[in-house]
Amino acid sequence: MSGLFITFEGGEGAGKSTVLSRINERLEKEGYDVLATREPGGSLIAEKIRQVILDPSHTEMDNRTEALLYAAARRQHLVETVLPHLKKGGLVLCDRFVDSSLVYQGVAREIGVEDVRKINLFATEGKLPDLTLFFDVAPEIGLARITSHDGREYNRLDRESLKFHEQVRDAYHQLHNQEPERIRMVDASYPLEKVMMETWEEIKQFIEG
Amino acid sequence: MSGLFITFEGGEGAGKSTVLSRINERLEKEGYDVLATREPGGSLIAEKIRQVILDPSHTEMDNRTEALLYAAARRQHLVETVLPHLKKGGLVLCDRFVDSSLVYQGVAREIGVEDVRKINLFATEGKLPDLTLFFDVAPEIGLARITSHDGREYNRLDRESLKFHEQVRDAYHQLHNQEPERIRMVDASYPLEKVMMETWEEIKQFIEG
Repeated sequence: MSGLFITFEGGEGAGKSTVLSRINERLEKEGYDVLATREPGGSLIAEKIRQVILDPSHTEMDNRTEALLYAAARRQHLVETVLPHLKKGGLVLCDRFVDSSLVYQGVAREIGVEDVRKINLFATEGKLPDLTLFFDVAPEIGLARITSHDGREYNRLDRESLKFHEQVRDAYHQLHNQEPERIRMVDASYPLEKVMMETWEEIKQFIEG
Repeated sequence: MSGLFITFEGGEGAGKSTVLSRINERLEKEGYDVLATREPGGSLIAEKIRQVILDPSHTEMDNRTEALLYAAARRQHLVETVLPHLKKGGLVLCDRFVDSSLVYQGVAREIGVEDVRKINLFATEGKLPDLTLFFDVAPEIGLARITSHDGREYNRLDRESLKFHEQVRDAYHQLHNQEPERIRMVDASYPLEKVMMETWEEIKQFIEG
């Protein structure tokens, strides 16, 4: 397996999805075989699981059920979409992966990081990203960006409180401190153009290095 | 928590669902506060997960994804349906629980019993049935019963080979040997009326004992 698996992580409104899409375009222009994808989703079955997770009417969703559904969608996406592209030597840019579950389910939902890691190890059989970019932004800034978007899909997860988002940010910082080599931090409080440039430099250096 | 949690286990066509429904009627007639339910399903969200698991068009379903989805449905059903009924002192009769996953995903799908047990421990937080009835029947007999049914829902799991069903039966026997106190074996090769009587005796003795 000679491809590279790069994941994009961060709280709401950090701009990671927009940056991912622009990086994808630029890498394709330079001739790379890139697959841009996202979690949860990215395959027929994973998208069905995504619908169950994000349905705003599912107010009775238990935290552990949610964590198991994310792990299920992750497994299917990994096996059907990510691994086949890596196998043929391609680059995979993925919006969220295991780190999101450690942060959202493990810390912010208070299930515990180690328990959430266990079910994700079951799902991934130990597969980790080669590089993870953590887009760091204060929740106040991130959430303000989101609510100013027009026509954005509104889902159950957006309804969380500010405290929740602060826990998310702290948890990402902890993961970054534990694995500074794999998880690189990008200051996402800057305007999009600057964040984009910084990300591009990180990725280019990683691919070519 | 003073209720009793009784699960019904076994391969296809063992008659456990029919027996469960008859036992339920009889217990209700005797004045017990009984909840008859089944897995996967038994709550709005769990039923949505059930649809994803059993959809015959989901031919790309990975074994580990399937195991995680069963664990997710189990968690939601446990929290929303089973535990509240037990809490008010009721009897819960449940068609399939963790043992089904150990057998189907762990052994027959070859993921490994211990790995499947781990994700189920995450889902149940250690909750076990007070009593489990394992309806034992040779696959040839069980499968012959199923195919003679009219109008039965046809799903992806029915398409498995005879070898698969033999592994399922062997795995149930192993679980029974490991936990003979909790898991009682009922010979389900007899006609329904006899199986029903034997089950009734087991349950009555357990409830009153």
